[in-house]
Amino acid sequence: MTQILGHNFIGGQRSAAGTVTLQSLDATTGEALPYTFVQATEAEVDAAAQAAGAAYPAFRSLPAARRAEFLDAIADEIDALGDDFVATVCRETALPAGRIQGERGRTSGQMRLFATVLRRGDFYGARIDLALPERKPLPRVDLRQCRIGLGPVAVFGASNFPLAFSTAGGDTASALAAGCPVVFKAHGGHMATAELVALAILRAAERSGMPSGVFNMIFGGGVGAALVKHPAIQAVGFTGSLGGGRALCDMAAARPQPIPVFAEMSSINPMLLLPEALRVRGEQIASELGASVMLGAGQFCTSPGLVLGIRSPEFSAFLDKLGQFFSTQPAQTLLNAGGLCSYADGLQRLISVDGIRHLSGQAQTGKQAQPQLFQADVSLLLNGDKVLQEEIFGPTTIVVEVADHAQLTQALNSLHGQLTATLIAEPTDLEQFADLVPLLEQKAGRLLLNGYPTGVEVSDAMVHGGPYPATSDARGTSVGSLAIDRFLRPVCYQNYPDSLLPDALKNANPLGIRRLVNGQPSQEAVGS
Amino acid sequence: MTQILGHNFIGGQRSAAGTVTLQSLDATTGEALPYTFVQATEAEVDAAAQAAGAAYPAFRSLPAARRAEFLDAIADEIDALGDDFVATVCRETALPAGRIQGERGRTSGQMRLFATVLRRGDFYGARIDLALPERKPLPRVDLRQCRIGLGPVAVFGASNFPLAFSTAGGDTASALAAGCPVVFKAHGGHMATAELVALAILRAAERSGMPSGVFNMIFGGGVGAALVKHPAIQAVGFTGSLGGGRALCDMAAARPQPIPVFAEMSSINPMLLLPEALRVRGEQIASELGASVMLGAGQFCTSPGLVLGIRSPEFSAFLDKLGQFFSTQPAQTLLNAGGLCSYADGLQRLISVDGIRHLSGQAQTGKQAQPQLFQADVSLLLNGDKVLQEEIFGPTTIVVEVADHAQLTQALNSLHGQLTATLIAEPTDLEQFADLVPLLEQKAGRLLLNGYPTGVEVSDAMVHGGPYPATSDARGTSVGSLAIDRFLRPVCYQNYPDSLLPDALKNANPLGIRRLVNGQPSQEAVGS
Repeated sequence: MTQILGHNFIGGQRSAAGTVTLQSLDATTGEALPYTFVQATEAEVDAAAQAAGAAYPAFRSLPAARRAEFLDAIADEIDALGDDFVATVCRETALPAGRIQGERGRTSGQMRLFATVLRRGDFYGARIDLALPERKPLPRVDLRQCRIGLGPVAVFGASNFPLAFSTAGGDTASALAAGCPVVFKAHGGHMATAELVALAILRAAERSGMPSGVFNMIFGGGVGAALVKHPAIQAVGFTGSLGGGRALCDMAAARPQPIPVFAEMSSINPMLLLPEALRVRGEQIASELGASVMLGAGQFCTSPGLVLGIRSPEFSAFLDKLGQFFSTQPAQTLLNAGGLCSYADGLQRLISVDGIRHLSGQAQTGKQAQPQLFQADVSLLLNGDKVLQEEIFGPTTIVVEVADHAQLTQALNSLHGQLTATLIAEPTDLEQFADLVPLLEQKAGRLLLNGYPTGVEVSDAMVHGGPYPATSDARGTSVGSLAIDRFLRPVCYQNYPDSLLPDALKNANPLGIRRLVNGQPSQEAVGS
Repeated sequence: MTQILGHNFIGGQRSAAGTVTLQSLDATTGEALPYTFVQATEAEVDAAAQAAGAAYPAFRSLPAARRAEFLDAIADEIDALGDDFVATVCRETALPAGRIQGERGRTSGQMRLFATVLRRGDFYGARIDLALPERKPLPRVDLRQCRIGLGPVAVFGASNFPLAFSTAGGDTASALAAGCPVVFKAHGGHMATAELVALAILRAAERSGMPSGVFNMIFGGGVGAALVKHPAIQAVGFTGSLGGGRALCDMAAARPQPIPVFAEMSSINPMLLLPEALRVRGEQIASELGASVMLGAGQFCTSPGLVLGIRSPEFSAFLDKLGQFFSTQPAQTLLNAGGLCSYADGLQRLISVDGIRHLSGQAQTGKQAQPQLFQADVSLLLNGDKVLQEEIFGPTTIVVEVADHAQLTQALNSLHGQLTATLIAEPTDLEQFADLVPLLEQKAGRLLLNGYPTGVEVSDAMVHGGPYPATSDARGTSVGSLAIDRFLRPVCYQNYPDSLLPDALKNANPLGIRRLVNGQPSQEAVGS
């Protein structure tokens, strides 16, 4: 087993100048694990950001194929993290080994997807408008555009995906792919995991000859603010709570030089159960939906937190089945004690509201989370009560019964922005309720039909984003290859000679990429 | 001549509920023109934003080809604005008729470029990952992604381009192209112009059957804040001062739901004159550069405000020539009295700084701007003095002499973000100074060689953007077809039937657009 040193990762070196230490905890027992982590000092936060800044010019200027080698090397190193590693992650997060093994594959697969994107070259957004010296009244000069990395990116990983949304997760992968060095703020919930993954990244960086400082990692509570405010940092990726994400957005916006933040924050992922679907397979929907809520003990960003259906005997029967499902679910160990507190608080908040009824689940006591089912009056949605809009992280969901199609539309309109919105429907439902689709488009980043949002494919077409408060910028995604766009900016070259142009824009098209030439897509060379 | 009514444009109607009135001024004489404008009340600002919000669902859902017809119709209406119109613009801005005629063509051309973009279909960003039901360990579901408009956009036009960066300018064109209704805040410097252009847009909207509320315009000082804070507004486009732009950014970031702002603000557009170029054509450079500074009386966002050269007899000779050029330039009428005040203040700021010398130009008095040339010690740049970083809007520029290549690099490093950065160079210069190019890429959105930044082509490859404070978000551009990206967000459809998918994603590819299918570009239909 690799030794866990607990020092910060700065410019390819380890550093532990501080005196504040942190312990990683066994998520199941709450006991301290035998690892000590040294919180980064102010000077170390500065040094980490400076190291990323120093690496930026060399790193962003590397051929994309070289950065692809780096990402592939990280993927190989992550795949090679063995059973000891999986055991460490499981101890820190209480997630089962099978899930962590799966997430390991997802994380390396994500790195390889971005390597593919780099080799494909569409991320360059290469555009060439050739000179038109004879144009009247004025000639056109030669103009060429492609995209470069913004600069060093600060990444804040999530508690709930210790691999895929963390140290070497989607934000890190897309930032590195874009040519942006990373300073990663290790999540306090899985610091040993973070260290082992950071070591894997550094082995890959060394193996593929990357500049030191391409990846840095700092430990500690409260070091994030200094990182986001650091002038070398040019963008932020965050996955976590609405409160935490919004605080970072506000800090970034208040800097002398404001910087973009992509924060994936809070979503209740509404599911609309349409009448005919409930009629033909209500029981099956109850068990599938219940299973989706229980995935990862309900600690998924895309966990279905709100279930809408139209009053009917079939909907009542479905509710009974869902209640039975929840009553048979065992208590779940959450990722950490803080999560359990938040969960208990969230349940308490629901119980205290007039118009919300507890339908199923054991009283919440002890060190584990009891799965719970609630029902809320639709008036709470229609009157804009925020209690139903707030994500509760854990194994619970809230059912809302509406009177009819019109009230379903009203309820949908009252929802805030979402990562996902799902229709469970038969073909006849879709004919009758097709008018819901444009509403769903306005509310969410991903629209599902007859599926459950907890599965998030990593691919070109995926969107893991959505209107506020699902994310801080609906134009981005933190999963899938489009995630790279968040960290790129266009540069235009006017009348530059071939020798000074980036390869993506050279006449001969040495990278063989697709470019928009005089408004037409082309893979050909262009005249000088 | 069309009558100027001076009422706000709200949901296709005219409205003048307020009591505060505004006069448009003759920019040359300062006298009030015979038009009165009624400042929008709070309720009218609300109504305008609501009207845009009400138009959004229908407008964004139109086939792109229908929106293209709308943009083409606007272009035709703008082209049809005749000599009376040009005379009105000239009176309000003191810009010459030839310039306004040219800008009219640029503005209609810009509308037609976005119509082309809509018909080309790449703005959809269509991506399809077909289902892989046999994939192990888990099957892949069908995933399809394309982009939709964000929602209503608030646009703040510029004083200096009363047509191309104003009512029907690039921000309006790109927002409408994206499917976003617009609420335009008329610039106080050319309200009659704004009204005539707004009427042209509304004629086009009617002619092409657009929903009422697709374009709205409000008059008044101070109405902008209420507009940016309005919950219906989903993005902001702004061209103007750093102070004004930053204030809007801060407001937008502080909303309960923060929204993206693209503000094009402040750039001094450095020009680097390299030694061999000065040797072979120093005199020509002096007259070309001088002419670029004088364009539009120096009131271009891309006016060259800082000229850097290495100490040499050739540089001294160039300076003499440039000084002679400025000494022979006539005084210029600026766009408005406020601009003249700011210009005089800016000159005073320069004169008061140790290390800045006045080289050429008449004392600034009277109602016109005297062209001025200054020289500043490089130490001001190297020590981070902000006086040299601040744009002075008017016919002036500052020359800085550096000791050598190394100091030139240092001076460049000290610059803030820019819209443009220009090299004036011979081939031998480029060999010697190639290391400057990566620095320039980090500083600016557009890099020019042997040209002058005041010409901004409207095309696919143009970038009119750049790092802060040139703009509030270096990832965008406000000129060129990429400008549409600022107002689009991706939506993913998982397992949706063909009938409910947008045309851009349907199996048969009825729009005939290029799509990324399973990671490969394709114009073909896909299997269901």
